[in-house]
Amino acid sequence: MGEKIVIIGGVAAGPKVAARARRLSPQAEIAIVERGRLISYAGCGMPFYLAGQVKDFQELFTTPYGVKRDEEFFLSERNVRVFTLTEAVAINRRKKEVAAVDLATRRESVIPYDKLVLATGSVPVVPPFEGIGLQGVHRLNHPDDVQKIMDQIENVDDAVIIGAGMIGMEAADALVRRKMFVTVVELQEQILPGMLDADLAAVLKARLEERGVEFHLGEKVLRLEGDEAGRVTRVVTEKRALDAALVIIAVGVRPNVELAKAAGLTIGETGAISVNEYLQTDDPDIYALGDCVENLHLVSRRKVYLPLASIAARQGRVVGDNVVGGKSKFPGVLGTTVLKLMNINVGRTGLGEEQAREAGFSVSVATIGTHDRTHYYPEHGRFLLKLITEAKTGRILGAQAVGEGDAVKRIDVLACAINYGAGIDDLAHVDLGYAPPFSTPLDPVHHCVNTARNKAQGIAKGITAQELYSKLNSQDDFVLLDVRTPSQYRAGHIEDKRALLIPIGELRRRVGEIPQGKEVIVVCAVGSRSYEAQRILEGAGFANVRFLEGGLQAWPYELD
Amino acid sequence: MGEKIVIIGGVAAGPKVAARARRLSPQAEIAIVERGRLISYAGCGMPFYLAGQVKDFQELFTTPYGVKRDEEFFLSERNVRVFTLTEAVAINRRKKEVAAVDLATRRESVIPYDKLVLATGSVPVVPPFEGIGLQGVHRLNHPDDVQKIMDQIENVDDAVIIGAGMIGMEAADALVRRKMFVTVVELQEQILPGMLDADLAAVLKARLEERGVEFHLGEKVLRLEGDEAGRVTRVVTEKRALDAALVIIAVGVRPNVELAKAAGLTIGETGAISVNEYLQTDDPDIYALGDCVENLHLVSRRKVYLPLASIAARQGRVVGDNVVGGKSKFPGVLGTTVLKLMNINVGRTGLGEEQAREAGFSVSVATIGTHDRTHYYPEHGRFLLKLITEAKTGRILGAQAVGEGDAVKRIDVLACAINYGAGIDDLAHVDLGYAPPFSTPLDPVHHCVNTARNKAQGIAKGITAQELYSKLNSQDDFVLLDVRTPSQYRAGHIEDKRALLIPIGELRRRVGEIPQGKEVIVVCAVGSRSYEAQRILEGAGFANVRFLEGGLQAWPYELD
Repeated sequence: MGEKIVIIGGVAAGPKVAARARRLSPQAEIAIVERGRLISYAGCGMPFYLAGQVKDFQELFTTPYGVKRDEEFFLSERNVRVFTLTEAVAINRRKKEVAAVDLATRRESVIPYDKLVLATGSVPVVPPFEGIGLQGVHRLNHPDDVQKIMDQIENVDDAVIIGAGMIGMEAADALVRRKMFVTVVELQEQILPGMLDADLAAVLKARLEERGVEFHLGEKVLRLEGDEAGRVTRVVTEKRALDAALVIIAVGVRPNVELAKAAGLTIGETGAISVNEYLQTDDPDIYALGDCVENLHLVSRRKVYLPLASIAARQGRVVGDNVVGGKSKFPGVLGTTVLKLMNINVGRTGLGEEQAREAGFSVSVATIGTHDRTHYYPEHGRFLLKLITEAKTGRILGAQAVGEGDAVKRIDVLACAINYGAGIDDLAHVDLGYAPPFSTPLDPVHHCVNTARNKAQGIAKGITAQELYSKLNSQDDFVLLDVRTPSQYRAGHIEDKRALLIPIGELRRRVGEIPQGKEVIVVCAVGSRSYEAQRILEGAGFANVRFLEGGLQAWPYELD
Repeated sequence: MGEKIVIIGGVAAGPKVAARARRLSPQAEIAIVERGRLISYAGCGMPFYLAGQVKDFQELFTTPYGVKRDEEFFLSERNVRVFTLTEAVAINRRKKEVAAVDLATRRESVIPYDKLVLATGSVPVVPPFEGIGLQGVHRLNHPDDVQKIMDQIENVDDAVIIGAGMIGMEAADALVRRKMFVTVVELQEQILPGMLDADLAAVLKARLEERGVEFHLGEKVLRLEGDEAGRVTRVVTEKRALDAALVIIAVGVRPNVELAKAAGLTIGETGAISVNEYLQTDDPDIYALGDCVENLHLVSRRKVYLPLASIAARQGRVVGDNVVGGKSKFPGVLGTTVLKLMNINVGRTGLGEEQAREAGFSVSVATIGTHDRTHYYPEHGRFLLKLITEAKTGRILGAQAVGEGDAVKRIDVLACAINYGAGIDDLAHVDLGYAPPFSTPLDPVHHCVNTARNKAQGIAKGITAQELYSKLNSQDDFVLLDVRTPSQYRAGHIEDKRALLIPIGELRRRVGEIPQGKEVIVVCAVGSRSYEAQRILEGAGFANVRFLEGGLQAWPYELD
């Protein structure tokens, strides 16, 4: 007989380890122990079923070729034994045994191992407010949660989502598609706090508000209230009471490390299991991966907790190699995260602006508004792209993007660039593909990197939307110069007594209309014309000119 | 007064140089000399106007904010003087003067320069067959060509396109959208010969045939025939005569180097102007860029001629920097090229398989069929991804992709990876973004790179569609094992007396049905299950097993 490989956890990372180990070793004895009823399901697909985009719930449990991924599948196709509804309750490292309990019969068993794999995943954080047990209060972490929501969904008009993280926002998207009125309450001052910088989060929030979602940020939920039948009716925050027949709690997850902790394995500062580059715990016969481990961030070189399916999938292969005698390494992560909300694409990779500062970098930032492909191609969209670079070297530390256009392609390109240590000067020349259905001749990545280079060279001088907003609310004497066309101006502009409209094509001729000696802030739609105008004005002798980076596309505030 | 910068050519690269130089230098005197009537137009957009996807021809001549990019625009917005219908006829390098002729008045003039920029572009190759002057015979290289085709388009049923390069194929797409019956005749044995390897080109051709395009490859056109009115009626090849009321000739372009050659500047082996990394010709005061220059290929380290708008756009910034005293470098290209035909995405970057061999590399190849995103997400598609690597180091040399799925994102990621010298082992770990609307947990890039790693380690043993096809047409005794589901099999399979159907889930149990001692070739839909089956069979003692790489998705031949 071959080596005994026991894997605790059958949702995503565990089955991936089993599959790879089996392909490498026909003789290994591989078993998966899973406390739940379901295995190897597409947890990331749950919001799309909730939204009605995935019609058949079973699709989340089947292979692309339509075969159900159940115990029978794993046995027949992979020769892997799966024990569902079986909880691993203790690890005896000296004897190399796992104690398990059959949850149906309460029968205990002992499973010997040569190599043990912990793929115990994460558990949802339970917030401390009362009323959490009311009917109509759900989570969105497990397929059973989805079924419960679906059972109720027909009769609901008002839903409240507590938590504006990724799951909360995907839930909001799904319920808006179900024609509900959705309110999101978040303790922090921005949406997607773990994912996006505050500036891009503000833009995304404004776009989602246009699509009907209501937000209350920086607001603490005090309790949930219900009727006599025990059904939730209201969410009470420190500032208001919100009607709700359906509440989804999505305040995050934490790594499920009880078993590892009880076995004396090292838990890292993040609260997740500490592993080396081989994904070994400090017991060389015990590996761990997926949502229960912490990872090395390749830019900050710090440990981070990022429970993402993509990381788990890549780690699965590494652990699969190593449990059958391989020596594969998992180098670390960039925290690349992407998300689609309504028709808006959202992505980030590497470090955010504040994260980069906290990690000790000297930080420069450049933001552009851009078309994702040629403006004349019918299906084009715009997006904002923000680049975070190390000021003194030009090294790219991170990037974030939000918009209807194909932002996510660029995030992947930038993730690859960051992985290989790209700087703005070299990335500007990378030969990316162009044809009108896909891109612009200078790809948005190039455009953004060139803006960063222009800023680094002192040619381009930007101001952020947040800075301009404060300036407008101050008594500063300056000129707010809008250089768009009159029709663009009429469609929406910043109303201010310091504002002036001179379309870019008339600027050279009408430059005398701008009072000399004052600071000039130029605005346009996406930041191109205003940068051009900055250069024109500097050429005409104006000493203090800046342009709004990303243009009005980056403006999260009201327009007139 | 500032430096005198004279730019010859006003289509794409020239105006880009002017714009950048102007932003850097308010005082430079910048002039563009263009022999045509039109400037700064989106030549790449012409096929989409022809197709009816771009409704208004003027969109190809306007900025994203709707302002026409004409002489007046360049003067008012950029302070750049443009002389259209003015042909530069000679360069006097000693006197630093350009002799020009006003094509309307025939008046000659002399334009002095401090820095001269050659952005003279390319000219279409004129094939040597008779009948080329008949009415209804067009090219698709200039906006005037498009207008001529549009004038005729209403009354045409049958069109013949001569040349299956990028422009020819885009023209085919456009005319099929116009409900014409389109036949493409190509001298070489495959479509897109400069772009795709023969295997992927064969798959693409099969998909386009399904969509109604007819191809005659490896076939020489002898002449075009017309009626008494001088209108084209037939295209006569060495094998057949094709009815045609509309003919588009797209047999390629060559660099327009007459002026440079007459001025004694070095023309490279490719026939295009030779420039250094600053895009300087061998006269330090004369720069050249875009479709008239040759480029260094960063993988082969050879000079290549690639007339692509993306390259011209990036070069524009470099020359713009350098004509005003900068020292910017253009490192070279990867030949990244992307294309959308009907709803099929096509892309390539780096070296093709044969190109890599010719360049002296030891070559390994891996091909996968893949979903572009999770199979349960409504808008998903499949594509083929082929990776060309250096056998002994795992370095990635090139990649190609074809399919309805989002192939082009992956080509851009791979272009970035190649640019930074990626190898298969490191690229496997790059943290690309995953969410169901965008990708699979293991991105297709990872999946393909892992296949290459499995092949390099001897775990995966592939056979190409072409190799299997020859094998089927031989007398070889082997087992062709299809491991798909019965319903997939019924929908289309390779009919052969050596074929056997055992779904993967039954394979371990039914392995005894496969005759020992024979070679086994396993096929499935995309190559995943057949690889799994290869490993199962090897575990069961079969010594000689291979799987069809890319599955039947890579199969360009008929199915039963």
